Amino acid sequence: MITPRTPSGTFELLPPEQIAFQRMLDAIRAGYERFGFLPVETPVFERSEVLLTKTGGETERQVYFVQSTGALEKARDAAGEGDAEGEEAAYPELALRFDLTVPLARYVAEHEHQLTFPFRRYQMQRVYRGERPQRGRFREFYQCDVDIIGKDELSVRHDAECPAIIHAIFTDLAIGAFTIQVNNRKLLRGFYEDLGIVDGEQQAAVLREVDKLDKRGGDHLRTTLTGEGFGLAADVVEQILSFVQVRSTGHDDALARLAAVEAASRGSQALAEGVAELREVLTLVRALGVPEQDYRLNFSIARGLDYYTGTVYETVLDDHPEIGSICSGGRYDNLAGQYTRSRLPGVGISIGLSRLFWQLREAGILQASTARSTVQVLVPQVDAALLDDQLALASHLRHGGINTEAVLDGGKLGKQLRYADRAGIRFVAILGPQEVGEGTVTIKDLHRQDQFTVPRAEVVAALRVELAQPEV
Amino acid sequence: MITPRTPSGTFELLPPEQIAFQRMLDAIRAGYERFGFLPVETPVFERSEVLLTKTGGETERQVYFVQSTGALEKARDAAGEGDAEGEEAAYPELALRFDLTVPLARYVAEHEHQLTFPFRRYQMQRVYRGERPQRGRFREFYQCDVDIIGKDELSVRHDAECPAIIHAIFTDLAIGAFTIQVNNRKLLRGFYEDLGIVDGEQQAAVLREVDKLDKRGGDHLRTTLTGEGFGLAADVVEQILSFVQVRSTGHDDALARLAAVEAASRGSQALAEGVAELREVLTLVRALGVPEQDYRLNFSIARGLDYYTGTVYETVLDDHPEIGSICSGGRYDNLAGQYTRSRLPGVGISIGLSRLFWQLREAGILQASTARSTVQVLVPQVDAALLDDQLALASHLRHGGINTEAVLDGGKLGKQLRYADRAGIRFVAILGPQEVGEGTVTIKDLHRQDQFTVPRAEVVAALRVELAQPEV
Repeated sequence: MITPRTPSGTFELLPPEQIAFQRMLDAIRAGYERFGFLPVETPVFERSEVLLTKTGGETERQVYFVQSTGALEKARDAAGEGDAEGEEAAYPELALRFDLTVPLARYVAEHEHQLTFPFRRYQMQRVYRGERPQRGRFREFYQCDVDIIGKDELSVRHDAECPAIIHAIFTDLAIGAFTIQVNNRKLLRGFYEDLGIVDGEQQAAVLREVDKLDKRGGDHLRTTLTGEGFGLAADVVEQILSFVQVRSTGHDDALARLAAVEAASRGSQALAEGVAELREVLTLVRALGVPEQDYRLNFSIARGLDYYTGTVYETVLDDHPEIGSICSGGRYDNLAGQYTRSRLPGVGISIGLSRLFWQLREAGILQASTARSTVQVLVPQVDAALLDDQLALASHLRHGGINTEAVLDGGKLGKQLRYADRAGIRFVAILGPQEVGEGTVTIKDLHRQDQFTVPRAEVVAALRVELAQPEV
Repeated sequence: MITPRTPSGTFELLPPEQIAFQRMLDAIRAGYERFGFLPVETPVFERSEVLLTKTGGETERQVYFVQSTGALEKARDAAGEGDAEGEEAAYPELALRFDLTVPLARYVAEHEHQLTFPFRRYQMQRVYRGERPQRGRFREFYQCDVDIIGKDELSVRHDAECPAIIHAIFTDLAIGAFTIQVNNRKLLRGFYEDLGIVDGEQQAAVLREVDKLDKRGGDHLRTTLTGEGFGLAADVVEQILSFVQVRSTGHDDALARLAAVEAASRGSQALAEGVAELREVLTLVRALGVPEQDYRLNFSIARGLDYYTGTVYETVLDDHPEIGSICSGGRYDNLAGQYTRSRLPGVGISIGLSRLFWQLREAGILQASTARSTVQVLVPQVDAALLDDQLALASHLRHGGINTEAVLDGGKLGKQLRYADRAGIRFVAILGPQEVGEGTVTIKDLHRQDQFTVPRAEVVAALRVELAQPEV
């Protein structure tokens, strides 16, 4: 007997939670489609040479390689014979995707001449990382990505769509108040240039320290940045500290903050561009109807150091800042430089849904009102002699678009009702000898502990009315 | 520069086809939920000891193993040092699922005490087989499975649900007339017992030959079964030949065929049970509203030799028999004997959607009328000065539940209209200076080459009416 268990670091749900998860996936998909994005799915594995072309050592360490039995045995034979020094260093041919960005780059480059640009695609699939498993960190998890890819160029106006999408989706998901935080990498670069921190590597090192501000506090940052290695002047560090603490309150305040940064600039071109981009983005975010309390400037946001080149986004739940960003992304200059000579700038965001779902569950903020079953009506077996009528009723309900389970194993009615209750099925449509004689159906509402009888011809309409009402 | 290409044997679609594929997935999901099934998803990989416990050599040859970089290097070191004779034979810890049945067995056994039985689950995920790639055979493909699992027992009545589900789903998919073919393994076993072919292995050998009847013809079968190795009498072979050619025409004919088989029986208990089960299944299939021209008895259907124990199903497209079965399945005695001592009988069916989609496309029977884009309306940029109005209109449409793309890169209106046409977007909502002045929107229908102007307040309602009409 083999012990049945899932591999460590994976995330498997029981049906009631799977239903809640599926609803979130559906809401995100509907949101992405609402904004005019097209679906893409890619294979779970890519050729290793495609997947590992751009990545540093850390990503490579986390990749899962895939080998058929034949390839595995061949590799072992080669290694066993010790004749394959060179080959030993080579990777297996296939590896599981570790994000949806590399597959998107490969997809756009491969199908470039069959796509229309700007190419607006969404992709919601699982990705794989061979991390050490720990609470809330998974080796397999869903990412829900949306990107707009231009050919040669892509107007910064598209950068305003991301906050509008985030706003629409997280409003739909109804997991609490949230704030979309916006910044711009050019503005960041320009700010540090103005302070005389011009070298890219030095900037990156400073940004890494600034990123630890929340954890370690201002004094630690002062000591580090004025100390050996950085050697910044104390007043420069104070300027950094006050800069990264900027959070706008409202739309006009955001524009005023931008004006202030611009006025204080010592002429950095990058800063001027960053300010201009943010100004345009914020203006269009407002035009797209995002309420001003739901977005703000946050000059501390950098989002990694190599990838993003313009606007960057993070989203936080106002009442659960400890969860961190629930939706992030930004603008990049060139999606697929390693696969094509075409220049493909883009902007996009990503929701790590498995992790978010896990965190929402941990924080107790998954919607309790969500139905625990996709089954809307149970048709119990009241009398074995009426089986044909029971099945005809079930078919009638299904034709009416109602998700219906028919009990076929029999048992006492009370037991069947308890089953419905335990399984989270709210309505029971009863067809006993009396109902068959009268041409009626009795509907029991297990939530309201209520029941009523309707003519058979009206049962679909009656149930639709009930189902359209909010859960109790 | 790395050449961007998908691994061989995978199946990647451009957006218009991905949309058609997604619609099929959605229809299948809706169908499964309509019949009261709950969603399950499992990790893409399972522990190898779980996955390979029951399988024969062939499956093992087709498994893809998964290894993180660390595990891979460790295995190489061990093999390279030649100190791991024993370990060399062991498989890597993880492997990609090759079907959804083994994961279901593991899931039900692992979560047995948290599930309610009969457990009705559907699962629609990709599975992996390291087959040699060939036309229409994929290494990664979708399976859409539905199963009903009982604890200790499961009424044969549930076997009647599968044809009803198949009927509902393939009616919805609208890919042409189809016939659900039903048989029963007990009836088969009993028939051969009656002929004196009692030994299980001999039965299996005969069934394998019979399975080649379509390809090789009756004469070849006669020669084989009467020849060395089998040594059956000529009249026995004729009985087999006439038995496996039975196809019922209509419900009453099916019952008459069963009565005839029963009357001809020399008393096999298995045959009597098989006949009784089929009789009950057919009667309930009719009670569930499946039209009698859409199902039939077909005594040639066996569906593999080890797994199924009772009712078996295959489904064929009437006009495309060359495609083979598009939905198959059956009843099994015990789902998870290798993981739990509980007896878990079940019945289920599976749709191999990637392969089906590919075949439908090859046969030219994918619905041509399907929309090529999920985008319903394009809001072009008529005048850069009206950008705020354009975005407000796009938001208004999205709030109204209409999938809307707003053009943000500008360009001439004619070019934007051509983009919409090429991208398969049917409606364009134009807001020029005149419309803004009048408080109206002009709707262009690119399919009907038609246009009309509506007050801004009515644009959502007007578009909903248009969108509810069938495509032209």
